[in-house]
Amino acid sequence: MRDNGFLKRFGENLRRLRELKGLSQEELYFRANLSKNQVGNIERGEVNTTISTAYALSQALGVELPELFKFE
Amino acid sequence: MRDNGFLKRFGENLRRLRELKGLSQEELYFRANLSKNQVGNIERGEVNTTISTAYALSQALGVELPELFKFE
Repeated sequence: MRDNGFLKRFGENLRRLRELKGLSQEELYFRANLSKNQVGNIERGEVNTTISTAYALSQALGVELPELFKFE
Repeated sequence: MRDNGFLKRFGENLRRLRELKGLSQEELYFRANLSKNQVGNIERGEVNTTISTAYALSQALGVELPELFKFE
């Protein structure tokens, strides 16, 4: 169950939110306690990440979790 | 990166939305093209599912994807 179009749009929205917050990929993965390339991979839509990782990203960005999914 | 408390709350919210729509677990996993026990496992918070699966569930339920994450 992988939807590449959806993953690309999720990644683009994550990048938009990260840049709005003025964070680098390094700052975000450090805050969210993720591995080094994980943020880049997610932003490029290359990874079908988990909902727990999405939750960690929302907390690291300081946004409500539903914001990560508002791009449809 | 697994947050059991979060997964439990996500599962409870998914069950709430499913029951609101009057769907059984079988009807939901069939519509979302998931495997037999996947909906039950997600609702019990036993599975750290992917964002693509969450997207498929939202479409099968006929709700906007952010709704699946409005329980915090």
